[in-house]
Amino acid sequence: MADQPFRIVEVLYPGLTQLDFTGPHTVFSRIPGAETVVASEPGGAIESDGGLTFAGTRRMADIPSCDLLFVPGGLAATDVINDLVFMAEIRRLASSARYLTSVCTGSLVLGAAGLLQGRRAACHWAWRQLLPLFGAIADPSRVVRDGDVITGGGVTAGIDFALVVAAEIAGEATAQALQLNIEYAPAPPFQAGCPETAPAKVLAQVNKRMAAFLPERTRQVEAAAARLRATG
Amino acid sequence: MADQPFRIVEVLYPGLTQLDFTGPHTVFSRIPGAETVVASEPGGAIESDGGLTFAGTRRMADIPSCDLLFVPGGLAATDVINDLVFMAEIRRLASSARYLTSVCTGSLVLGAAGLLQGRRAACHWAWRQLLPLFGAIADPSRVVRDGDVITGGGVTAGIDFALVVAAEIAGEATAQALQLNIEYAPAPPFQAGCPETAPAKVLAQVNKRMAAFLPERTRQVEAAAARLRATG
Repeated sequence: MADQPFRIVEVLYPGLTQLDFTGPHTVFSRIPGAETVVASEPGGAIESDGGLTFAGTRRMADIPSCDLLFVPGGLAATDVINDLVFMAEIRRLASSARYLTSVCTGSLVLGAAGLLQGRRAACHWAWRQLLPLFGAIADPSRVVRDGDVITGGGVTAGIDFALVVAAEIAGEATAQALQLNIEYAPAPPFQAGCPETAPAKVLAQVNKRMAAFLPERTRQVEAAAARLRATG
Repeated sequence: MADQPFRIVEVLYPGLTQLDFTGPHTVFSRIPGAETVVASEPGGAIESDGGLTFAGTRRMADIPSCDLLFVPGGLAATDVINDLVFMAEIRRLASSARYLTSVCTGSLVLGAAGLLQGRRAACHWAWRQLLPLFGAIADPSRVVRDGDVITGGGVTAGIDFALVVAAEIAGEATAQALQLNIEYAPAPPFQAGCPETAPAKVLAQVNKRMAAFLPERTRQVEAAAARLRATG
């Protein structure tokens, strides 16, 4: 890395899924020579899911540029893709970034910004099918790399994703040291982490709950996709 | 579960490792019928590692009781075990709890409170050997259950731990649905997550960095252990 710190801008918005952000942040904030900037469109305190509020985020407009842009997901991701001020800031920061990255439905934000056209990208399994509306190719892998675009699947995929990013920008040995530091030798008590391995009853129950959100989220994605087609 | 929400009190302190807390919080905050209370001794904003600040924590003294007490770890865990006001609140809340739980060096806090005497407990691999100073039996497992004490290993073990806890208090199907929701089908890019599998050079490097902290942390644990023997 160069003498200047490698600047990672992490973009929060109200209603984000905090673990999409906090998993990668743990890794990113420990990369030697990197600087993490926690940002949001208004700046200040941002409330995430589960009632957690992060204080003191920086205003996106006050950040001139970044080396890596990172967008976590959340149920509210399809709200913010229709917030024109937020999306203008995403596009501006993306234009300066060497890497564009996301976890979970954060890839819908990159997609809505027109940054994934013809690119393979990951997304949370339940929302992955929305990516092609932005011209992206939905990839079911846990971490997907397509050139300078690195994306992770749902929520906890952010830890795998962040280690891939750490290896890319700081080398494998550094990424492995970070993995050892956070004792990342996962041992899930159940094999229910993806639709292919979850018990059928559990999958049906989760799908039923997700289905309640699907019409409105699809409508929001379609609105953003129409705007993208119209503008560029 | 009963009609009353199952109250989970999560105890923060300055310098905690935020992923120790945010991983389990994601699971706990989604358990139907459970209520999560994010607390700290002074209340208000608490700064964690990596520059993240959590706003609006509740004052421990204002929380009359809990069903489950959860203590995350962090480099500062061995500071707070010598904070007598904090430790008195830990003991008071623990006395009302059905379950005592921790992740990472959070088990040193439970130990210093005299809650692990003769009990098996997990801890971050680099600090596990300090547990016996509090009369606990250090267990290298990722999640350890000994009666009503459920503890997780270092940092990311918190997700495995939280799913075990969710299954205990809300049933396996609920824990599996939560696992599917957070797409927890981990796929680490390297096998460096514990000393047994990490490359020797990486382990040596991390051990060297940890060694710099060891004398002071050991001294802090010894001071707390002496106090425990004198009073308890």
